[in-house]
Amino acid sequence: MNIHELIAELRESNPSKIVLLVADGLGGLPLEPGGTTELETARTPNLDACARDGVCGLSIPVLPGITPGSGPGHLGLFGYDPLEYRIGRGILEALGINFHVTPRDVAVRGNFVTLENGLIKDRRAGRPTTERCVEMVKKMRAVKIPGVEVFVEPVKEHRFVAVFRADGLGDRVNDTDPQAIGVAPLAAKGGDEPSEKTAAAVNEFIRQVNEILKDDGPTNGATLRGFAKFPKIGTMQEVYGLKSAAIAVYPMYKGLAKLVGMDVLDAGDSLESQVATLKRVWGQYDFFFLHYKYTDSTGEDGNFPKKVEMIERLDGIIPSMLELNPDVFIVTGDHSTPSKMKSHSWHPVPTLIRAATARTDSVMKFGESTCLQGGLGQFEAKHLMLMAMAHAGRLGKYGA
Amino acid sequence: MNIHELIAELRESNPSKIVLLVADGLGGLPLEPGGTTELETARTPNLDACARDGVCGLSIPVLPGITPGSGPGHLGLFGYDPLEYRIGRGILEALGINFHVTPRDVAVRGNFVTLENGLIKDRRAGRPTTERCVEMVKKMRAVKIPGVEVFVEPVKEHRFVAVFRADGLGDRVNDTDPQAIGVAPLAAKGGDEPSEKTAAAVNEFIRQVNEILKDDGPTNGATLRGFAKFPKIGTMQEVYGLKSAAIAVYPMYKGLAKLVGMDVLDAGDSLESQVATLKRVWGQYDFFFLHYKYTDSTGEDGNFPKKVEMIERLDGIIPSMLELNPDVFIVTGDHSTPSKMKSHSWHPVPTLIRAATARTDSVMKFGESTCLQGGLGQFEAKHLMLMAMAHAGRLGKYGA
Repeated sequence: MNIHELIAELRESNPSKIVLLVADGLGGLPLEPGGTTELETARTPNLDACARDGVCGLSIPVLPGITPGSGPGHLGLFGYDPLEYRIGRGILEALGINFHVTPRDVAVRGNFVTLENGLIKDRRAGRPTTERCVEMVKKMRAVKIPGVEVFVEPVKEHRFVAVFRADGLGDRVNDTDPQAIGVAPLAAKGGDEPSEKTAAAVNEFIRQVNEILKDDGPTNGATLRGFAKFPKIGTMQEVYGLKSAAIAVYPMYKGLAKLVGMDVLDAGDSLESQVATLKRVWGQYDFFFLHYKYTDSTGEDGNFPKKVEMIERLDGIIPSMLELNPDVFIVTGDHSTPSKMKSHSWHPVPTLIRAATARTDSVMKFGESTCLQGGLGQFEAKHLMLMAMAHAGRLGKYGA
Repeated sequence: MNIHELIAELRESNPSKIVLLVADGLGGLPLEPGGTTELETARTPNLDACARDGVCGLSIPVLPGITPGSGPGHLGLFGYDPLEYRIGRGILEALGINFHVTPRDVAVRGNFVTLENGLIKDRRAGRPTTERCVEMVKKMRAVKIPGVEVFVEPVKEHRFVAVFRADGLGDRVNDTDPQAIGVAPLAAKGGDEPSEKTAAAVNEFIRQVNEILKDDGPTNGATLRGFAKFPKIGTMQEVYGLKSAAIAVYPMYKGLAKLVGMDVLDAGDSLESQVATLKRVWGQYDFFFLHYKYTDSTGEDGNFPKKVEMIERLDGIIPSMLELNPDVFIVTGDHSTPSKMKSHSWHPVPTLIRAATARTDSVMKFGESTCLQGGLGQFEAKHLMLMAMAHAGRLGKYGA
């Protein structure tokens, strides 16, 4: 029996409220052996009080040593085994620009390239400005394919998203990007009958694009990679019986929340506006996912003191969330982003659960080393929602 | 390879003795954040000495957040994955009243109900006394079904157990209890051919019962739910090569032990008589399961000081067990039952293994927070028997 089947069997309904606050890339590293991490360096009286009154531990996003992207990182926290539920690149790109993907769509990531005599001379078309990307995308919208709707959206610089919409399209289509220069882009081929239909549309799309852009060097061609359909995935309502709201600022996280069926609310662009939204809709939902980006972006920038500052800002907003008296209040991250590494990492992520049913432990301060002593131990992220449901009294007894 | 296949490959025989002492519902919660649990409050010098001389940890009964019933809780401790081996309600009820179930049986839980014009007016027949339950059950024994033996046994108040015995009966039969009032009980239907045979017997049983009880309002009808066959399950002898004895007071736990092929011994009705039994049969078995109920029942009652007292009583008996010099002495629980929650819970269960081969750790006192520092870490209950076998020198090397 998998976890979702087990939950379907055990889940119960009650008026409890669960808040999952995800500080993206929360975990970090000390700059020197024996030093403190960003979280341990930050002054966090409010998170520390939650750690003291709750139970702590460390979340392993996927498996020991596996560094996740945002997609698998969040799927794990939402209780979807990231090794079982995979989101294709095309879909993630589309979610990232807030494109509303439907089950009839095949989405794909596109690159502008420079072609010379039909061969790729520059795989990123000399990194055009985003303004030029937008201009080229507008031209590409002239493409018409009988029986298939095509959408093209700019992302950034040389990157765009294409979405093919029709009944019966498959996503088993090879990348047209050969990942090499001096060769021609590859033709698309379908791995099954629905995907052959997609491949035909893709090849026609590329044919027309090459015609449309032929005088627009260096952005006179395009390659595509990561054809993907919207994955079949049970909603949070279906899996947990939780009416769920996402209160996020960045499109990628709104998209990931939409993927699991959350209502994506207008959250403004700051922690303060996010909390205002939380308060406004408090009576209407069971589960609230709040996403905070800046612990990740400062880590990616390698800016240790700035990440510390962003953690302290987050700490400052905690009391206004606790005013609502959530039955279960969880703080964690989708992965670590140590400033020292300037990238996502595999290191387990500090996690706390504050609830009346928590078995409190000796942890008095929220940090990587203190959480090692916590009652949650080190656990796989995909089990976090089981713990959330249990602490909320929403899981009945298994077996008599 | 599953765990049992691995054990079958590695297991070795020697004269070692393993004692598994299960304090039902052992784990608890502090009443206030930062307070002590029942176990931490109790004065337990003997358990503390075992913790000091052995290795400690916390057992996760099923998965994080999953609260088990007694069945899955014990199966896990006996090394049978509780998500793989499921025991139907009917079988558990039959085990609970010490009914000897055979592989030809389909057992089911019954409720007396009040019928009015064929519709259910009260799903529990006004909660009759157990005396009346016994009286009604005696009447029901008049039921005769050609080709199928039927046994009816009283449980308590409105509850009874019915067992249908014949070759080729299946248990894919729906509950006849509609779990609603103002409607008629449901007819039984079989989900496959053997279960159709059961369903036919069930419908005939109900027809005769309705006739027999028709003037016995308010207990003038019956519904059935949880049809179940005895699960196919390897015995402790088959899986581990351990000649195993159960020394338990309550029928449910005797039944669970019988399920995995243990010899169920006459254990009297006290810890003292259980230990006397242990001493009497010490030379005849390899493995001894002792069950202590009162840590659970006092937790269920929400009686914190009484649970503390019951833990101290258990502690008092430990030296008389250790006199026998078991090679491996394990103390754990099948789940937590915090007095604060008055119910089973998912919280991990303090566990100790005392053995000459244990890697001792820093734990000097047996309790939830100290066990967090223990050498066993947090582990799934289904792995405990692997540890028992290993510490007893009964598992050979895997691979060359």
